[in-house]
Amino acid sequence: MRVVFIGAGNLATRLSLAMSRAGMEILQVYSRTAARAEALAGKLGCVWTDALDAVSPDADLYLFALKDTALREVIAGMRPNGGLWAHTAGSMPLSVFAGATERYGVMYPLQTFSVEREVDFKRIPFFLEASSAREEALLKKVAGTLSDDVRPLSSEKRKYLHLAAVFACNFTNHMYALAERILRERGIPGEVLLPLIDETAAKVHELSPERAQTGPAVRYDRNVIDKHLALLRDPDVRDLYERISANIYNLKSEI
Amino acid sequence: MRVVFIGAGNLATRLSLAMSRAGMEILQVYSRTAARAEALAGKLGCVWTDALDAVSPDADLYLFALKDTALREVIAGMRPNGGLWAHTAGSMPLSVFAGATERYGVMYPLQTFSVEREVDFKRIPFFLEASSAREEALLKKVAGTLSDDVRPLSSEKRKYLHLAAVFACNFTNHMYALAERILRERGIPGEVLLPLIDETAAKVHELSPERAQTGPAVRYDRNVIDKHLALLRDPDVRDLYERISANIYNLKSEI
Repeated sequence: MRVVFIGAGNLATRLSLAMSRAGMEILQVYSRTAARAEALAGKLGCVWTDALDAVSPDADLYLFALKDTALREVIAGMRPNGGLWAHTAGSMPLSVFAGATERYGVMYPLQTFSVEREVDFKRIPFFLEASSAREEALLKKVAGTLSDDVRPLSSEKRKYLHLAAVFACNFTNHMYALAERILRERGIPGEVLLPLIDETAAKVHELSPERAQTGPAVRYDRNVIDKHLALLRDPDVRDLYERISANIYNLKSEI
Repeated sequence: MRVVFIGAGNLATRLSLAMSRAGMEILQVYSRTAARAEALAGKLGCVWTDALDAVSPDADLYLFALKDTALREVIAGMRPNGGLWAHTAGSMPLSVFAGATERYGVMYPLQTFSVEREVDFKRIPFFLEASSAREEALLKKVAGTLSDDVRPLSSEKRKYLHLAAVFACNFTNHMYALAERILRERGIPGEVLLPLIDETAAKVHELSPERAQTGPAVRYDRNVIDKHLALLRDPDVRDLYERISANIYNLKSEI
C-alpha cells in the first residue's frame, strides 16, 4: 500500500506515522506550507512538495487531511490519477470528491490529535464511507490495520458525530482551560485537578453522563451558584457559568 | 479513631467506606432522611439516627458531609461535645463552626463522588484547614491514611478550588451529556465517544489545556462553526456552542 498525504498538520502527522509503523509505505507529503511538508516528510523519511502538480500519480491511496476550507480548493487543483482519494474530515460530505475523480471515500478517525502527542490507534473508532463497495473494502483494510473499531457511516450522520466530538473534546478541554486559569490566578497549581479530570472521564464508562452528574447545578443549589458567580470577574466566563448551570438543571428535569 | 458521619449522600458514602476500610471505626451515621442514614449505616455495619440530639457524643471526629444550606442549620442544632468537627465542603468557610464548638476544621477532597461508584482515594488531593495546629495535625493523619496528596489551604483559596472543580468536572460532564444526546438522536451509540473522552483527559497530563486545544473554534473555522450551529435545534445548546467557541478563540488570542 503506497500512500500520499495531502496535508501535514496534527491529524496528518499522527495518522501517517501510525500507517508507516504499520508497514504502509508513505511515498510523499504535500502541504501548501513548505516548512510543514518538510517537517513531516523528515519524520517519515519520504519526499515532500508544496506544489500540487508535483504530487506523485503513483500511489494507491491519497489521504486528504486538511481544513475544510482548504479541502475543496486542493481537490479542485489535483491532477486526476488512478488512486483512491479519501479525506479524514468529520463535517465534509463524501460528495466533495464527485466530478474530480472516480474512486473516492472518507476515513474519519474520531480522536483529537496533536503533532507532539502519540495516541493509541487501536482504540480509535474509524468511520468509513466510499464511492463503491470495492473502495470501502480497501479503506476497511487500511483502517483495520490501525484500529480494532472500524464502522461504516453516512456523510449525514458523520456531521452529527463531528458536532458531538466538538462538545466531548474541544468544549471539554475548554472547561479544563477555564478551571486551570481560575487556579493559576490564585497561585494554586493546575495539576491538582488531574485526578478529578481523570475520574470525570472514567465515570462515564460506567454511568451515563446524566447519572454521573454531581455539583451545585444539578442540585440547583442557588446559594453556591450565586457565590461562584460573584467570584468570576470575566463577564463572558460568568455568563458561561450561568448558562451551563441552567442547561444542566434543565436537562435533568427533562429526563 | 472513632468517627460519626453527619450526612449520608455521595461524598459521605464513599468517604465513610474508605475510612472504614482503612481501619477507622465509624460509630454512627446521621441524616435528616432516615432511609439514607439507614442505607449507609447498613453498608458500614453501624447504628444510625435521624435525630440530631441522638448523635453520639463519644466520637473523636464528626465529619459533616452535607449541602451548604443544610450545613449551617445542622451545626446550629448539634449539641456541643469534645470531638473535632470538620466539614468537607469546598465553598463553606472554616468559620461556619465558630461559636458552635471549640475544635473544628475542614477536610476537602477534590473529587466527584457517586454512591454507586468506587474511587481510588490514594490519588485524591485533600485540602485541610483547622482551628489550631493540633486539629490540623489530626486531620492530616486521617487524610494521610486515605491519600498520598494532603495539603493545607485557606477558606479563601478553597472557594476558588471549588469553582474550578465545577468547570473541570460538572461542566465537563455536561459537555459529555450534550455530545451523547446529539448522537442518541441520530441512532449512533454514545460509547463511540469514550476513546475521545479518555484521550482529551489524558492529553492535559502532558500538554496544558491551551496547547492541547484542537477543533474548529481554536482555528476559528467559521465554515464548520456555522454548519454546526445549523445542526443544533435546541436554542439553548446552540447558544452555548456559539459562546463557548467564541471564548475558546478569545482565550487563545490572550495567550
